[in-house]
Amino acid sequence: MVNQSFHKLGTAPSVIRELFAYGLKQAAAIGAENVYDYSLGNPSIPAPAKVNQSICDILGDTDSIKVHGYSMAAGFDGAREAIARNLNKRFNLSIKSSNLFLTCGAAPALISVIKALLCDAESEIMAIAPFFPEYRPFTESNGGKLVVVPADTKAFQINMEALESLISCHTQAIIVNSPNNPSGVVYTEATLKRLGDLLTKKSKEYGHPIYIIADEPYRELVYGGVKVPFIPHIYANTIVCYSYSKSLSLPGERIGYVCVPDFVEDSAAVYAAVAGAARAMGHVCPPTLMQLVIERCADELPDLAAYDENRTLLYDSLTAMGYECAKPDGAFYLFVKAPNGDAMAFSEKAKTEYNLLFVPGDGFECPGYLRLSYCVSNDMIKRSLPAFKSMIESYK
Amino acid sequence: MVNQSFHKLGTAPSVIRELFAYGLKQAAAIGAENVYDYSLGNPSIPAPAKVNQSICDILGDTDSIKVHGYSMAAGFDGAREAIARNLNKRFNLSIKSSNLFLTCGAAPALISVIKALLCDAESEIMAIAPFFPEYRPFTESNGGKLVVVPADTKAFQINMEALESLISCHTQAIIVNSPNNPSGVVYTEATLKRLGDLLTKKSKEYGHPIYIIADEPYRELVYGGVKVPFIPHIYANTIVCYSYSKSLSLPGERIGYVCVPDFVEDSAAVYAAVAGAARAMGHVCPPTLMQLVIERCADELPDLAAYDENRTLLYDSLTAMGYECAKPDGAFYLFVKAPNGDAMAFSEKAKTEYNLLFVPGDGFECPGYLRLSYCVSNDMIKRSLPAFKSMIESYK
Repeated sequence: MVNQSFHKLGTAPSVIRELFAYGLKQAAAIGAENVYDYSLGNPSIPAPAKVNQSICDILGDTDSIKVHGYSMAAGFDGAREAIARNLNKRFNLSIKSSNLFLTCGAAPALISVIKALLCDAESEIMAIAPFFPEYRPFTESNGGKLVVVPADTKAFQINMEALESLISCHTQAIIVNSPNNPSGVVYTEATLKRLGDLLTKKSKEYGHPIYIIADEPYRELVYGGVKVPFIPHIYANTIVCYSYSKSLSLPGERIGYVCVPDFVEDSAAVYAAVAGAARAMGHVCPPTLMQLVIERCADELPDLAAYDENRTLLYDSLTAMGYECAKPDGAFYLFVKAPNGDAMAFSEKAKTEYNLLFVPGDGFECPGYLRLSYCVSNDMIKRSLPAFKSMIESYK
Repeated sequence: MVNQSFHKLGTAPSVIRELFAYGLKQAAAIGAENVYDYSLGNPSIPAPAKVNQSICDILGDTDSIKVHGYSMAAGFDGAREAIARNLNKRFNLSIKSSNLFLTCGAAPALISVIKALLCDAESEIMAIAPFFPEYRPFTESNGGKLVVVPADTKAFQINMEALESLISCHTQAIIVNSPNNPSGVVYTEATLKRLGDLLTKKSKEYGHPIYIIADEPYRELVYGGVKVPFIPHIYANTIVCYSYSKSLSLPGERIGYVCVPDFVEDSAAVYAAVAGAARAMGHVCPPTLMQLVIERCADELPDLAAYDENRTLLYDSLTAMGYECAKPDGAFYLFVKAPNGDAMAFSEKAKTEYNLLFVPGDGFECPGYLRLSYCVSNDMIKRSLPAFKSMIESYK
């Protein structure tokens, strides 16, 4: 007598969580130094010092009833203005605070937008493989159809021919996640330009806008001087979903936003529907202390040196051993080709024989690959390299 | 091309928010001391000192990556264990941390339970008038039917005959909110016993459990030695939804929980469906810093003296003037009968002629009454009394 689809969702095994639990168990049994856990995307660098300093300052200088009291559903004006200023300065925009709807992180931000754009039982949302596995329940559990564009396994850009063939009159939006989880790849300006041109053409053909939902929690995590193109500059009908989880190392605090710029078609209606969808999910306001932190820390940037060092060490070492891997310009993931093509078997063998833990690409709807989260200690990477070497040699 | 029902929900006028905005405007125009705003249920006493002290302590004594990092979806073990200990001690239970699912406040807690219990398109959730207006979108926007039990306007207990006549084979749950928003009334042990007996009988008749969803954000806010019966003691199939918004004055921080005790029928399935429903709404984890605060402050109680003083002053003054009002034993609301029965007209006149703001009962599906939130300054109450007197005299 309970809802069967939610029951299924609540009991579905999670490969990532199971690997993590296995890692903890093994660490207790054989010592943490002998387990090489690349499974979790939990930032390994602390929040910038200004975050905790701001928390202490706020408790000292702001009325406790304001700090912990309700804000408007979209967030405090001050937090929204600070975010708007930051976006306008960096991207030469004229976003107003009324374009921003603050949320309890990127997940409800994405779902609010997806729900807002699902007009009827035929409505489709597109995702480009490989992609964050939760896009599927986020869409399907809310009455939408998820249409998957198969991966471009050459460069992990976008398989544009496949995408074009899959667009239909029911396509309401396409989720674009760059820097990408799990590939670590940044979509180039050329890729996004082609995508924008295609969506403009198809929007005209079907007589309604096909929106891009830009899922950007990794926007600030790029290395080696690579620039992440700002999608609204390339395609106007872009709704941005952001989270401070990765950029300020605050994943547990649940603070992010939806940005619906005025230049988005039907922007007022989209914004209102996002607010209504959030209300239907019990969104009252985003955590208020964290809103006040964002007001003071919106311009802070993460210290990426540790991630970059990990990235270089792991990428250089693995490719030198013969592993194939897409060039990881952003986020904190490597997406490595399983030497024999069977990522499930390779992961299982790595786990049981070497205590080397990473997530098979199957969950990201891109079988044959392995996701390695390098938000770990540099020492762990060094210690793990012999295991990677033994693994690939056993497949030669 | 956006979802019409969410668009409607996102643009629906809110009487409470509009009154609040009007009050701010008037305060700017004629001085805050001349506006008497009883519209909002925002706690007016600060969080217990231990809350802010705990935040500072946590930042000093806990690794920043743990403080702000992901927790499990259900919450940190430590926070759940502290809540379980508190419940077990106070209510002589044996709740385990695995019975608790922490949420971003009571609203998503309630919706997760409602969604978990909506099995098909015919499923019904009952609410007892007067009730928190969001119960309607919480249910209807998630595919359920809301069945309203009309108010018992004599004592604001439960109109049991009406309730019995409205139960059907589709009734999945009934939301019970005591101390009640908006009436301030506490349901008596006798009322709850009759309800429990009826639900036991009807569950047997229909061959499936009819759950009580106990919405308990005001559990700790009672006055004059009144005891709030703990519903699971009276009716085993009770799922508790709680929030620290009122008891710790943390409404903006979004921290609460669902408790599904083992003695609830199908407890494992209900818990799993709650977790799945939360996942479908983008619940990743509750705010982590606040979880750590709850771990340290689960036993804290609010300082109710200020509310009690307000309650007594307002209730005694209004009834002496001739207003009729249900006995307000809990929460921070008075539910006053509109002298001529037309609460909308009375509220409008009070607002425009006396800057006296309160919410008509219509939104709580109980027309003819006025909700006064007395989480305000005692001084404001004193200053407002002549306006109440003039209002009732103008109706004599």
